[in-house]
Amino acid sequence: MGVTSHDVARLAGVNQSTVSRALRGTPGVAEQTQRRVREAAATLGYVPSDAGRALSTRRTGSIGVLSGELTNPFYPELVEPIRESLLAAGFRPVLIPDSPSEPFDPDRWARGVFDGMILATARAGSQIPQQLRRHGIPFVFANREIPAIEADRCVSDNAAGARAAAELIVELGHVRVAAVMGPEDTSTGRERDSGFRNELQRSGIVFQNDHFERGEFTFGVGYAATARLVSRLAPTAIFCANDVLALGAADALMAAGAADSTMLVGFDDISSAGRRVYDLTTVHTDIALMGRTAVDLLISRIEDPTRPYERVVLPTSMIRRRLLAN
Amino acid sequence: MGVTSHDVARLAGVNQSTVSRALRGTPGVAEQTQRRVREAAATLGYVPSDAGRALSTRRTGSIGVLSGELTNPFYPELVEPIRESLLAAGFRPVLIPDSPSEPFDPDRWARGVFDGMILATARAGSQIPQQLRRHGIPFVFANREIPAIEADRCVSDNAAGARAAAELIVELGHVRVAAVMGPEDTSTGRERDSGFRNELQRSGIVFQNDHFERGEFTFGVGYAATARLVSRLAPTAIFCANDVLALGAADALMAAGAADSTMLVGFDDISSAGRRVYDLTTVHTDIALMGRTAVDLLISRIEDPTRPYERVVLPTSMIRRRLLAN
Repeated sequence: MGVTSHDVARLAGVNQSTVSRALRGTPGVAEQTQRRVREAAATLGYVPSDAGRALSTRRTGSIGVLSGELTNPFYPELVEPIRESLLAAGFRPVLIPDSPSEPFDPDRWARGVFDGMILATARAGSQIPQQLRRHGIPFVFANREIPAIEADRCVSDNAAGARAAAELIVELGHVRVAAVMGPEDTSTGRERDSGFRNELQRSGIVFQNDHFERGEFTFGVGYAATARLVSRLAPTAIFCANDVLALGAADALMAAGAADSTMLVGFDDISSAGRRVYDLTTVHTDIALMGRTAVDLLISRIEDPTRPYERVVLPTSMIRRRLLAN
Repeated sequence: MGVTSHDVARLAGVNQSTVSRALRGTPGVAEQTQRRVREAAATLGYVPSDAGRALSTRRTGSIGVLSGELTNPFYPELVEPIRESLLAAGFRPVLIPDSPSEPFDPDRWARGVFDGMILATARAGSQIPQQLRRHGIPFVFANREIPAIEADRCVSDNAAGARAAAELIVELGHVRVAAVMGPEDTSTGRERDSGFRNELQRSGIVFQNDHFERGEFTFGVGYAATARLVSRLAPTAIFCANDVLALGAADALMAAGAADSTMLVGFDDISSAGRRVYDLTTVHTDIALMGRTAVDLLISRIEDPTRPYERVVLPTSMIRRRLLAN
């Protein structure tokens, strides 16, 4: 074997995973670091070849991608860039959408089948990570994570995004504020909840138990929760912990005749949010970059099982579309 | 081996594939036939076991599902019931979404990997069916078909559905009628085009070359085509050859300020069509039944490679949501 990314990493003084990210020009790597890595690679005559390195380290060539149901539009948007990146790296992506009727069982499906897995549906209490570790199958968390489990992960800055949503709502003068929060056993659900809540509190806005509803990240939950909030509080602004909830909320507001008098803020910026019929103000997350970064982290882990775990947090930004002042 | 579905089929005087459909209570099998099959099964002491029969005939246990891009919301709705049915029958579904950057190559991926395939993206001229046949891999067409190729298939009655769309538009008094048609190398594109066109002609409505646009079944095509039609013709009604095109059309009508003066009719009845923000009048197709039937046909084919090919055509119906008379 010739020069490896190990050698480049050593010379450049960076983590090994940073080498491939820097050389592929993935955003999130400081320009100075990118230059140092490129110079080290040039000095050593290192030519990165994702397909090549995949061939040299893979056993089955397949990577399992555990996602939510594909009829939830968030997941196709996360899964497509993951698939593209895996194909480009010479791996065969195997999609395993969450199936309530037949939950994924690593003991049955994963051993000897996958070189690694990307987990996009992590929930506190899930046994899947431990099972995978027992079978020696490397994995990465994407979008959601389980904090207590040591593993590579790529997530959005959920707390900062939710704070920004609260700031915008306060800035527009709203005081009767409600929210549809996500499940407490997901990191996205918890972090978006506390980020939003803390910022409202800081601004002196009342936000008590009857000001929010909580449920799964689905259209149906968004619809039903919003219908209840409207009849209970008549809020002038509603924060939804993700866009899928917000699509349900938009329908419920139309049904209640409150669409033109209620400000809606979502989270994720899935493609539906940008459609004119929704024109949804939302917290933008870079879903495609999250998918690509998760693949990079997993491939680096397969290459070097002993390297330190990495947590990549992607920044969010507010997308101001339809705005409604109180 | 004990009593098989062959024996039941012979005694009941039906096709073998009808046996499993009748015993599973799949709609589309006449009640009388269902009774005959159940009686024959009882007489022979035949116990259907999808998982059991899968185990006895499968080699790899995997079925490939070739679908369009998952970010096109039609495909998750078709693929989920296919996955559920395959899992219930003891097979492992492997999703292969269409990847423009890496088109599916049966010579590379399918041989020795799949017991069978479900093809949901058939286009005239595609080499995939012949390649699969060369490798001895059974396949079924779902939703789209290639008429010249002998194979099992489950499709909607596209021509009848498109005729019904034209009838409704005429019934509402529209005379300046436009359409966004799908690709000519897909059976859905062709049949919906001719069905719509023939019915308009029968009703004496002018429908010339400048009355329609044609493109891929995407949001972007629906948007751009509708923008052109509105500025060229100011139609009072637009037929879109599928709902994804209609979602793009709805956005374009909003952008042009024509949403309240233009009747829109789609095709497929995907879940977005029923949302209040769209409230789209459309031709309902039973997407879930189409997926389940395709799985049934494929399993019957794997069980008995020599049985005659079947073409199952599912009826459509008009869903009248938002209506706009001329």
